[in-house]
Amino acid sequence: VKRVLVTGATGFIGRQVLAPLVEAGHEVHAVARGAPGQPGPAAVSWHAGDLLAPGAAERIVAAVRPTHLLHLAWYVEHGRFWTGLENVRWVEATLALLRAFAAGGGERAVMAGTSAEYDWAYGFCSEHVTPLRPATLYGIAKDATHRVAAAAAEGSGVALAWGRVFFLYGPHEHPDRLVASVARALAEGRPADVSPGTQVRDFMHVEDVARGFCALVDSPVTGPVNVATGEPARIRDVVAALAEAAGRPDLPRYGALPQPAGDPPVLLADVRRLRDEVGFTPVHGLTSGLAATLEWWSGR
Amino acid sequence: VKRVLVTGATGFIGRQVLAPLVEAGHEVHAVARGAPGQPGPAAVSWHAGDLLAPGAAERIVAAVRPTHLLHLAWYVEHGRFWTGLENVRWVEATLALLRAFAAGGGERAVMAGTSAEYDWAYGFCSEHVTPLRPATLYGIAKDATHRVAAAAAEGSGVALAWGRVFFLYGPHEHPDRLVASVARALAEGRPADVSPGTQVRDFMHVEDVARGFCALVDSPVTGPVNVATGEPARIRDVVAALAEAAGRPDLPRYGALPQPAGDPPVLLADVRRLRDEVGFTPVHGLTSGLAATLEWWSGR
Repeated sequence: VKRVLVTGATGFIGRQVLAPLVEAGHEVHAVARGAPGQPGPAAVSWHAGDLLAPGAAERIVAAVRPTHLLHLAWYVEHGRFWTGLENVRWVEATLALLRAFAAGGGERAVMAGTSAEYDWAYGFCSEHVTPLRPATLYGIAKDATHRVAAAAAEGSGVALAWGRVFFLYGPHEHPDRLVASVARALAEGRPADVSPGTQVRDFMHVEDVARGFCALVDSPVTGPVNVATGEPARIRDVVAALAEAAGRPDLPRYGALPQPAGDPPVLLADVRRLRDEVGFTPVHGLTSGLAATLEWWSGR
Repeated sequence: VKRVLVTGATGFIGRQVLAPLVEAGHEVHAVARGAPGQPGPAAVSWHAGDLLAPGAAERIVAAVRPTHLLHLAWYVEHGRFWTGLENVRWVEATLALLRAFAAGGGERAVMAGTSAEYDWAYGFCSEHVTPLRPATLYGIAKDATHRVAAAAAEGSGVALAWGRVFFLYGPHEHPDRLVASVARALAEGRPADVSPGTQVRDFMHVEDVARGFCALVDSPVTGPVNVATGEPARIRDVVAALAEAAGRPDLPRYGALPQPAGDPPVLLADVRRLRDEVGFTPVHGLTSGLAATLEWWSGR
């Protein structure tokens, strides 16, 4: 049986990985800063700990002796995570965690990367083709962590996969992010002010993102793997689908907000590694995923 | 007056920076793992501390309140530093040190990088031209540290320069490295077995490397700066110059050792940034530098 240590287990993606990991028959251990009484199946063992505290990683690894690591924790404060210096602390904490995991006999680690590692000028993001040129401290920190982690893992006999997430939505999203804010407005019958929304993006329901990471845990694939749908969606079409699901196509006001300056026209993932090598396909299409998300926000 | 905190101050380069920094009128503080009684001028204030220990950087920065940081400490164990996992710990320690320095009001940091960050297939290494593609954990760790440190420094108002060192020689070099081992053989009248030595390299006397770093401390230049001579030297010419200085041109046996597989034919630095922007020129030429080095080893 695999002993899987999950970090960031109370987060947006992390809270969705616990049930699939338990269902897959794994022994699941989760780290959280706060007290017990956390989300997810009863079978999950919770461990209190702050990975930014010195020695925390060693202590938790010694207690759990994980064979597998699913590291989702990072600094994600909305509006600040792109540039916050906390990104630097997470570089340090992630490398310390990997060292402790390897020293404790760990076999396979899966970590969360980001589409922001790519040079967005290229639009289509393919793992072994598109240049990496992160433009933000967040992207730089993730990319640098990946570089060191990949070499350190290889040097210590750990198999490492690095899942790059793109645009996600679903339950427990920060209320001010795009899909959540539009869904909330629609649920409350308010107009939804959006940009013209001509940008093409790769949107994935957070449950599928989580399932994709769980598939990576059970796969032998190493290296960077985009965790995305590969389906191009214009932002205005995402808003329109939400409005359609709400029966209120009149509420979105396209162009009421400006297009963000410098926003790239296309950001789309190559998903051949995830689909063909990992063997994963998402459950949700955009229509079902957005309808489920609208329903979740309507029930708040 | 600048308060300069020097790490790695008992190392190969570090021990040579103390006198020039004191002579330049700076208040010099040095970190060492061991007890006091360290090399260098009496004016240097020594602080005991292991930068790999949690909290050490914060403690030392709080005690010194440095305006300038010259960070030379890293994992350098001969024969192991290219691949040792200790490189990962130094990524973490370096970023933690930079965070502490910035939080303590530090103004300017100078850190030691390496020619091993470049893609050696290009031969000529120019800071803003040659692609970075480190082939070793050491190079990967240094490069990744630079990426995060540069962005973090910019985000926290610290000026950061990153000095990339190439091939160096001089007093206190590890006795098994090229110049030291040949100088020792010559000093003892033994034959010196070397490879055919046709590779072109950029050799700099460690005193010049140290002075180059001191010039970087006092310069406003930021970003990567090669700390090298720009003078191409074949390895066999370096050996021949040492033998000439020893009066024993008969002792080198060229080709007695194999050329290392995959060794690049040329590794030469572009030094225009160091020379024209920083305004630094080395004191030693190869002839005087090697003669001084031979003399030092002869006196051991």
